[in-house]
Amino acid sequence: MIRYSTSISLDGFTAGPDQSLENPLGIGGMRLHDWVFELAAWRREHGQEGGVENASTPVVEAANENVGAILMGRNMFGGGPGPWGDEPWNGWWGDDPPFHLPVFVLTHHPRPPLECLGGTTFTFVTDGLDAAVGQTREAAGGQDVAVAGGSSVARQLLTAGLLDEVQLHVVPVLLGAGVRLFDDGDPSLALEQTSVVEAPGVVHLTYRVRAT
Amino acid sequence: MIRYSTSISLDGFTAGPDQSLENPLGIGGMRLHDWVFELAAWRREHGQEGGVENASTPVVEAANENVGAILMGRNMFGGGPGPWGDEPWNGWWGDDPPFHLPVFVLTHHPRPPLECLGGTTFTFVTDGLDAAVGQTREAAGGQDVAVAGGSSVARQLLTAGLLDEVQLHVVPVLLGAGVRLFDDGDPSLALEQTSVVEAPGVVHLTYRVRAT
Repeated sequence: MIRYSTSISLDGFTAGPDQSLENPLGIGGMRLHDWVFELAAWRREHGQEGGVENASTPVVEAANENVGAILMGRNMFGGGPGPWGDEPWNGWWGDDPPFHLPVFVLTHHPRPPLECLGGTTFTFVTDGLDAAVGQTREAAGGQDVAVAGGSSVARQLLTAGLLDEVQLHVVPVLLGAGVRLFDDGDPSLALEQTSVVEAPGVVHLTYRVRAT
Repeated sequence: MIRYSTSISLDGFTAGPDQSLENPLGIGGMRLHDWVFELAAWRREHGQEGGVENASTPVVEAANENVGAILMGRNMFGGGPGPWGDEPWNGWWGDDPPFHLPVFVLTHHPRPPLECLGGTTFTFVTDGLDAAVGQTREAAGGQDVAVAGGSSVARQLLTAGLLDEVQLHVVPVLLGAGVRLFDDGDPSLALEQTSVVEAPGVVHLTYRVRAT
């Protein structure tokens, strides 16, 4: 199963306007993630102490379960036109990224695979979506593929009928502008609401995508 | 309290594209309301028999409780350029509209009030949003004002800081185009998630709007 999970504003944006290297989530975009930053489960995973447990905790834990490999877009890996080539450049993620899995990055910029601490490897796929999905599936070895990051790859997968599940963490925030997950969505897509979880400052909605 | 309740697609549309007299909800827009059309509670109110009871039933019943008057836009009343003037024209609603309350219609077309069977009266307000809100509030006599219909009036109220509560009936449908409730939303609006109800084919999300 290929699944995508994202925080999203009530007006449908997964990132705010004016994304940049300094502000990769765009103006106001960090507000979409306040609910997760305060969770002990998330903080542990990112080497931080403290935090709370609440109804979001099992949702975040389940999102990481049974995932064998990760597919992400170039913006999620490193944003902007990085100095890739001879120089090392680990994107946003430093020496010990929080993924601990094989990660496949859909990009136009070829570069050799990057092996990091903690079991994360980045493989850069330049021959398109289908190839990236194929390689990620294979690396997942029967487990699920998680799509990470902004909406661009998720939207491409949705359009191509390759996404099996979408989970939206809907936060009570309006961004007014930015990146829309469902821009120009296909009305023939059949979605089935499979789970609803109310939590402090967020509601987690899960949908199964069915081929039509 | 002024409250607005609407069905909305997962991609944020309250009506589909190409709204017309023949198709007032736009292409695909009827799909937003399937969840309510099947409810016994809704069918009784609209003079129809049969239907089911499910987790949406108390939500629909609560939406009608403690409402003293209704505010709606011109499209919700009658759509299109109706033959108002000497001719009788009751909008979409026939002789016995399902409101049974004083209804105030925000419009640019002056006409005398229209008294219908079953306690519904339509009053046409041509001197702007504030005047319409004032008259509707007064008619509500301490009870709530419900905003009915498409997003235009609700969006104006939201922008003016006059809306106290928004309830979204989110259905697992993509419309791809149409009328967005939160077009150009104001990021400084503070929303508080106050209730989440999971029901078959829909999730009901309620937000309190707070002045900032």
